[in-house]
Amino acid sequence: MDVEKLLRQVQEGTLTIEKAKEALRELPYSELGYAKLDNHRKIRQGFSEVIFCQGKTDEHLTGIYEHFYAQGENVLGTRATRAQYEIVKKKVPGVVYDEVSRILKIEQNITEKTGMIAVCTAGTADIPVAEEAAQTAEFFGSRVQRYYDVGVAGIHRLFAKIEDIRKANCCIAAAGMEGALASVLAGLVDIPVIAVPTSVGYGANFGGVSALLTMINSCANGISVVNIDNGYGAGYTATQINRLAVKGHE
Amino acid sequence: MDVEKLLRQVQEGTLTIEKAKEALRELPYSELGYAKLDNHRKIRQGFSEVIFCQGKTDEHLTGIYEHFYAQGENVLGTRATRAQYEIVKKKVPGVVYDEVSRILKIEQNITEKTGMIAVCTAGTADIPVAEEAAQTAEFFGSRVQRYYDVGVAGIHRLFAKIEDIRKANCCIAAAGMEGALASVLAGLVDIPVIAVPTSVGYGANFGGVSALLTMINSCANGISVVNIDNGYGAGYTATQINRLAVKGHE
Amino acid sequence: MDVEKLLRQVQEGTLTIEKAKEALRELPYSELGYAKLDNHRKIRQGFSEVIFCQGKTDEHLTGIYEHFYAQGENVLGTRATRAQYEIVKKKVPGVVYDEVSRILKIEQNITEKTGMIAVCTAGTADIPVAEEAAQTAEFFGSRVQRYYDVGVAGIHRLFAKIEDIRKANCCIAAAGMEGALASVLAGLVDIPVIAVPTSVGYGANFGGVSALLTMINSCANGISVVNIDNGYGAGYTATQINRLAVKGHE
Amino acid sequence: MDVEKLLRQVQEGTLTIEKAKEALRELPYSELGYAKLDNHRKIRQGFSEVIFCQGKTDEHLTGIYEHFYAQGENVLGTRATRAQYEIVKKKVPGVVYDEVSRILKIEQNITEKTGMIAVCTAGTADIPVAEEAAQTAEFFGSRVQRYYDVGVAGIHRLFAKIEDIRKANCCIAAAGMEGALASVLAGLVDIPVIAVPTSVGYGANFGGVSALLTMINSCANGISVVNIDNGYGAGYTATQINRLAVKGHE
Amino acid sequence: MDVEKLLRQVQEGTLTIEKAKEALRELPYSELGYAKLDNHRKIRQGFSEVIFCQGKTDEHLTGIYEHFYAQGENVLGTRATRAQYEIVKKKVPGVVYDEVSRILKIEQNITEKTGMIAVCTAGTADIPVAEEAAQTAEFFGSRVQRYYDVGVAGIHRLFAKIEDIRKANCCIAAAGMEGALASVLAGLVDIPVIAVPTSVGYGANFGGVSALLTMINSCANGISVVNIDNGYGAGYTATQINRLAVKGHE
Amino acid sequence: MDVEKLLRQVQEGTLTIEKAKEALRELPYSELGYAKLDNHRKIRQGFSEVIFCQGKTDEHLTGIYEHFYAQGENVLGTRATRAQYEIVKKKVPGVVYDEVSRILKIEQNITEKTGMIAVCTAGTADIPVAEEAAQTAEFFGSRVQRYYDVGVAGIHRLFAKIEDIRKANCCIAAAGMEGALASVLAGLVDIPVIAVPTSVGYGANFGGVSALLTMINSCANGISVVNIDNGYGAGYTATQINRLAVKGHE
Amino acid sequence: MDVEKLLRQVQEGTLTIEKAKEALRELPYSELGYAKLDNHRKIRQGFSEVIFCQGKTDEHLTGIYEHFYAQGENVLGTRATRAQYEIVKKKVPGVVYDEVSRILKIEQNITEKTGMIAVCTAGTADIPVAEEAAQTAEFFGSRVQRYYDVGVAGIHRLFAKIEDIRKANCCIAAAGMEGALASVLAGLVDIPVIAVPTSVGYGANFGGVSALLTMINSCANGISVVNIDNGYGAGYTATQINRLAVKGHE
Amino acid sequence: MDVEKLLRQVQEGTLTIEKAKEALRELPYSELGYAKLDNHRKIRQGFSEVIFCQGKTDEHLTGIYEHFYAQGENVLGTRATRAQYEIVKKKVPGVVYDEVSRILKIEQNITEKTGMIAVCTAGTADIPVAEEAAQTAEFFGSRVQRYYDVGVAGIHRLFAKIEDIRKANCCIAAAGMEGALASVLAGLVDIPVIAVPTSVGYGANFGGVSALLTMINSCANGISVVNIDNGYGAGYTATQINRLAVKGHE
Repeated sequence: MDVEKLLRQVQEGTLTIEKAKEALRELPYSELGYAKLDNHRKIRQGFSEVIFCQGKTDEHLTGIYEHFYAQGENVLGTRATRAQYEIVKKKVPGVVYDEVSRILKIEQNITEKTGMIAVCTAGTADIPVAEEAAQTAEFFGSRVQRYYDVGVAGIHRLFAKIEDIRKANCCIAAAGMEGALASVLAGLVDIPVIAVPTSVGYGANFGGVSALLTMINSCANGISVVNIDNGYGAGYTATQINRLAVKGHE
Repeated sequence: MDVEKLLRQVQEGTLTIEKAKEALRELPYSELGYAKLDNHRKIRQGFSEVIFCQGKTDEHLTGIYEHFYAQGENVLGTRATRAQYEIVKKKVPGVVYDEVSRILKIEQNITEKTGMIAVCTAGTADIPVAEEAAQTAEFFGSRVQRYYDVGVAGIHRLFAKIEDIRKANCCIAAAGMEGALASVLAGLVDIPVIAVPTSVGYGANFGGVSALLTMINSCANGISVVNIDNGYGAGYTATQINRLAVKGHE
Repeated sequence: MDVEKLLRQVQEGTLTIEKAKEALRELPYSELGYAKLDNHRKIRQGFSEVIFCQGKTDEHLTGIYEHFYAQGENVLGTRATRAQYEIVKKKVPGVVYDEVSRILKIEQNITEKTGMIAVCTAGTADIPVAEEAAQTAEFFGSRVQRYYDVGVAGIHRLFAKIEDIRKANCCIAAAGMEGALASVLAGLVDIPVIAVPTSVGYGANFGGVSALLTMINSCANGISVVNIDNGYGAGYTATQINRLAVKGHE
Repeated sequence: MDVEKLLRQVQEGTLTIEKAKEALRELPYSELGYAKLDNHRKIRQGFSEVIFCQGKTDEHLTGIYEHFYAQGENVLGTRATRAQYEIVKKKVPGVVYDEVSRILKIEQNITEKTGMIAVCTAGTADIPVAEEAAQTAEFFGSRVQRYYDVGVAGIHRLFAKIEDIRKANCCIAAAGMEGALASVLAGLVDIPVIAVPTSVGYGANFGGVSALLTMINSCANGISVVNIDNGYGAGYTATQINRLAVKGHE
Repeated sequence: MDVEKLLRQVQEGTLTIEKAKEALRELPYSELGYAKLDNHRKIRQGFSEVIFCQGKTDEHLTGIYEHFYAQGENVLGTRATRAQYEIVKKKVPGVVYDEVSRILKIEQNITEKTGMIAVCTAGTADIPVAEEAAQTAEFFGSRVQRYYDVGVAGIHRLFAKIEDIRKANCCIAAAGMEGALASVLAGLVDIPVIAVPTSVGYGANFGGVSALLTMINSCANGISVVNIDNGYGAGYTATQINRLAVKGHE
Repeated sequence: MDVEKLLRQVQEGTLTIEKAKEALRELPYSELGYAKLDNHRKIRQGFSEVIFCQGKTDEHLTGIYEHFYAQGENVLGTRATRAQYEIVKKKVPGVVYDEVSRILKIEQNITEKTGMIAVCTAGTADIPVAEEAAQTAEFFGSRVQRYYDVGVAGIHRLFAKIEDIRKANCCIAAAGMEGALASVLAGLVDIPVIAVPTSVGYGANFGGVSALLTMINSCANGISVVNIDNGYGAGYTATQINRLAVKGHE
Repeated sequence: MDVEKLLRQVQEGTLTIEKAKEALRELPYSELGYAKLDNHRKIRQGFSEVIFCQGKTDEHLTGIYEHFYAQGENVLGTRATRAQYEIVKKKVPGVVYDEVSRILKIEQNITEKTGMIAVCTAGTADIPVAEEAAQTAEFFGSRVQRYYDVGVAGIHRLFAKIEDIRKANCCIAAAGMEGALASVLAGLVDIPVIAVPTSVGYGANFGGVSALLTMINSCANGISVVNIDNGYGAGYTATQINRLAVKGHE
Repeated sequence: MDVEKLLRQVQEGTLTIEKAKEALRELPYSELGYAKLDNHRKIRQGFSEVIFCQGKTDEHLTGIYEHFYAQGENVLGTRATRAQYEIVKKKVPGVVYDEVSRILKIEQNITEKTGMIAVCTAGTADIPVAEEAAQTAEFFGSRVQRYYDVGVAGIHRLFAKIEDIRKANCCIAAAGMEGALASVLAGLVDIPVIAVPTSVGYGANFGGVSALLTMINSCANGISVVNIDNGYGAGYTATQINRLAVKGHE
């Protein structure tokens, strides 16, 4: 490795200190830095590769899956179409597709699920986003419990489940339209609520902006918000929190 | 009166049919129409005069109150400042000012209160808007019950009162920030919910737009919405509904 | 039933007060609450089941209609496509579809129509939204009179009908583009005006936001607003008001 | 004058064609263009100098008024404060200030008023903007008739005046809140309607954007719109149209 | 006619004055008003029927054209598709379609063209909107001169034509992207400039809002604005102004 | 207590099961629910009382502080002015005010600080919001380390501290203007990043909306966002996460 | 040429000075101006013809390419579809199409590449916009180095290349989502950064507005911004700067 | 220095290669990186210290100026108030304040001005922003020529100066209202145009957003845009370009 070689040359006297300093000036930003950060993150996090499938060319996408499949690794692809699945499947038979969450994954090493994340939706139309969140969290090793269609228009449905939700380490609230679920939930639990506005609705919902504003302006404590329809982001953050609860931060 | 006079002249033969037709062509849009509509509305509605005080000059405002006071009528002024009150009071001692709702009124003929309107707020900061609504409704003859600070961050407070709210003919929900109260309320009652977004909040609440969008996009049934901070409008509409419930529409 | 059983055990001494209290702590939010609210609402409102068809899978949608059809109940589905109708019809022959309002319904028990709701539109393009409102109101038992194409660009058309509109208990104003109909209407009647902005228009109408803002900012009294194109919501609220006028609030 | 001098030198042979061409390359964009446009416009339009007073320093503003006063010209200043008036008055006693329109003017040569422009407002709060329009039009020689407080909340007031308004060459509609006046007016007259949204209102009126959108999206024919509160612009355009009607376009 | 009949009965003594007054109370808003306005407008304006084709059903559209064709009248349809043309043509062979402006018209009585309107565009992509404006103006009897692709990115093209444009009674400026053409034009002419923002552009043009804002905020005098892509509205207003210039307002 | 009493009466046979059921129908939503939720939350969370001081009247505010001071409890007030502090101090000498964070608190029982939260800002102008976050977290028992002025315009400042930040359980990123700090941070750490957009900036920052959008749209993993300038919300959520890391979720 | 001819006639006495002045009044804005500007720009800039292909008709587009091909000139067409390419190719075989950048060009005279522009992207999805920029710059004679997928979510990738980027004369940063790359880049280099927001992203990215706001509000020095997805504009400006660096401004 | 010391220890054998590698892993992001970047930028750029004065406390601000004054350095402070100037002046007599640009600076070493930047404004109200740009550029060593009040409402004023503007290396266009100056300018010159939208205007200008959109959407080549009122940013970028033109990029 370069740094080691450089230091050895200094030690052996074949490289002057002046020249070594000059070389080091560039080094940290290039190969050393690159390698270090990547290894560092993988070792500590155990987060496998994630691919945003939307807009990728078929060749590119298939290539990525083949590569990781060959290396025996797990891969999580989000926002994949059924058509993409059909194409990748031809080269990588082990790939699995979920129509609802639109997740396309290879799971060669099953991680044991730990802790607990509660994933809630206001309506049935929010389920695709919630499933992206739930399956992302599961892929990264979190145990997940689903509580779907517990929105505020029939709030007794939420109350019927609230004691169970309270037992989780973290809770995800996916809701479109007016997005009030996150507020009500945060008023009833004392765990972090990750709010995911969804684009479900019509008229003045502005593709989810209405729900986003509701969640950002919530008067209840303990809510933080991710992008509209960003189930993946919610699942990732929830997993980070769940891991902290399970084993603390190393 | 002009129409009567015209018809009499036709009857008496002092006005030709041609000339009468010509005169009538203009009439409906002018004095006839004017008088008719005004009398018509007063007789049926019993809605006294209402004044939007904000921005009126002192002379103008005092003049209006003096005029109606002299006529023995009731007047409801909204968005009045204390300074305006001080000035009007000098000329019209019977004027009454409420600091919270900013209503400046003369009430020379007390109307009996009938029916029931429930006025709810999410927080204490929404009370000024709610009071404008409540006092408007009372001024127009509605019985009003207040349920303040029953927002979704502590939803048990709302539940403690929900059976009483259900007994009203109509309910007003004033809420700022994320404005989720209207949704939760409409999910729990089966009377019309008039939602009033308030400008309470900060950051991305955009002066009440966040709450407005929440209410307009609500997935619960039976919500209709008035302008941000428009307590007066909510009180007026609620009174219309309350009257219908009390005596039907004539 | 659980609560009864619990109380009986307490009465019989087979359950200690301590254990009964613990059980009750969970109960209200779950089965008890659930049952109570649902029964409660159905008994008082007589509002049958409503389904938002848009985005539902064919299996899911057909299942719902089969279920309620078998139970001899009425069902109102909104935003249904003709394709959805074709599919549901195969399993539920009694289902009826209206191309204009896009309502897909089963009406096994005809409710008698009472009271009167006036449904107005500014132009002919607003009719689909108005029909969703009108047919929703009729489904829930309201008598409805339609006044279409009475917008402000030819205001005499509205004046020709205004006396009839005044006789209703409530009036719905559906308008796109600049949405001025609601303001003009509310200036001429003394019944509640439910304003429905429609997405009709182009350019800076922003899919109906222009009409929504017009209606929310109206200087006329007695207007409240529902979401863009939300004919269902307007019809529901209008029915609530119409019922109050017909028989008062129980 | 430069061009003449240049041509004379060419004629006299004291300037080569090459050098003349070079000089001409620059000329059109500079002095020639400058002089031509200015003289041209003044001769044809008779539009005197206009000054946007807002934000001008006292020295600058006073200087301008002194300059034109000394030249015996008329000057129209818009958006002037009373404080600015007090300062300018010290140096230019002939200056006249109108508190409502905030116009600060010198009128040394009274133009005869011709034609007719109708200036309408929805409410009394729109009068300052309407007066800026009316006084601008009068300053530039238009006869003006005012129709104030004829908004759609009491549409009979507008009908009482509509026949008079129809006799004008052009009509200005100033309205805030929901701004529906322009639509109703354009549906009743067949002259151009210049719509001026005003910032009057509150809540979701967004400082006049609501009225602007209403006017821009109007379904009525013959409306064109100027900026929020831009009474000056409306008065200027109305005068252009009024002149065309009075004497045609030269 | 009803009013005449009523007056005759009063004259003949077969209708009491009381009953006549009652009948008249309704009349102005209905048949009388209706007839008067329509006749009134047609006689004075000579504006034939206009149809917004977009979204009309084939049956409805064909019916309208057949009706007016049979009556020997002219009809102007805007925003028609080629498909609509093909369908209408089967029943009304005399119908004419223009692919660029998307105007579908019957012109059985050719009006003589008078006056002059200048129609300008910034680029070639703005031509469809400009043609809708130009052909609308021509249909209503205005002489039109086109000045296309004279936008500010190559301002010399505009200057080459400016003297001709100045000779018109009114000028239309259609521009998308940043829409600066209207400002530059209004700085160079002294006739009213009707600005039409177009939806041409991409990125932060927001479907024409960028050009709309540019035009509304213009610092040049004499600009008024219509809706995005509203060529029809611009052509209509320009014709109103052109007529005033040609013969004054009657 | 009511439930106990009720059950005893059932046990003793002095209350029928029917009447007990009826009484229980109301109970859960009122006193029982109220008490339960409150006690429940306090016991588990140890979160003391929090007060949003902004807009509270002096009497109201002083009353709250006196009440909790007398009870020997801790109180955290946010968005307090110095003037409010001066007034409260007269009655409650033990109250402490921090000019930067605008926190007004009583801390009678010092909680031991545990875990670690890293609070970062992009610039010095973001410090007030960051301090609200940091002091909120400390008040609720979190250990906090501050990393201020480490924004992306001089990214080496962030790198100099990154290893320390990585050791925290959770990290808060407060940034205005373009708000890029959150993205860069989340790319370098593997703990949850709570992003707080601040209203720092000018021009097209729209009072913090620019930073909010940056953070919501971040392509980096593990970011969730709270409202603009909502330091309190960030501190609260961070504390929830920190507690989970310290002791897991009970 | 006209001016020369005119001057000669003046010199020869066959044209009076009066008539010459009149002719000159029009000239500068027409043929003279036109020719001058065009020639002027071509000579100094060497910028060949550029065509915005989107929305052009096939006939129009083919005609343009045939014209310039026949003249032996280079042409750069942006936003061309493959279908357009197929059609143009039939008539102009020498035309070249690039699927990624969607550039359709004829390059008959290869310009030598000089200087250096660094084109960077945050992710792989930004490459189409970056390629439009890069290929535009190359077409106009700039040497270009690409640095793709160096976004802030993995900032070490950028550091690995930063020394090379610093050696360019100008740098382009294309990024969607939160667009933080431009800020980070400008903090690390001292050359002008042309920021191109891309529409890559979803949810609250508003088609690129989020990235646009991030870049416009950047706290880093030396950033200026072009329209969303406007790779062409960035490449053009970068070339202007690169030329200045290579040879200074003539 | 640390790196040197480290290398020496390796050379001397007092530090093992393992330990050196470990130390280096942290180094680049901390002291080394810090020093390097700062020195690096100062040496190459000669850009002195810049301070954003707005919102800084008096103590903080005075401290900064004292520090740099003592070091004999130049300092440029932007957005300073006169009050801030009065306070700083007491401690640092050499500080100079400009009322128009609001720049507060110390200039102990006068840099020779080179190259040429043209700074243009549309109106006189844009001058403060333009002066911030111009004085920033001068402070950093650029020669600047001002062209004020050359907006498109009187485009001949711009043409009179255009040949001079063309001689600059770069040009800044500051404009509010509709901001069309940048487009017109870019159509007439072939140097980079840095467009600065200003917040000058009213109504629908949205504090400068209108001008920003105009500039971003410009159809003219060679425009890039900075934030609203960001004269400093324009001056900085213009200086970068000017330097490149003067001496190329090192």
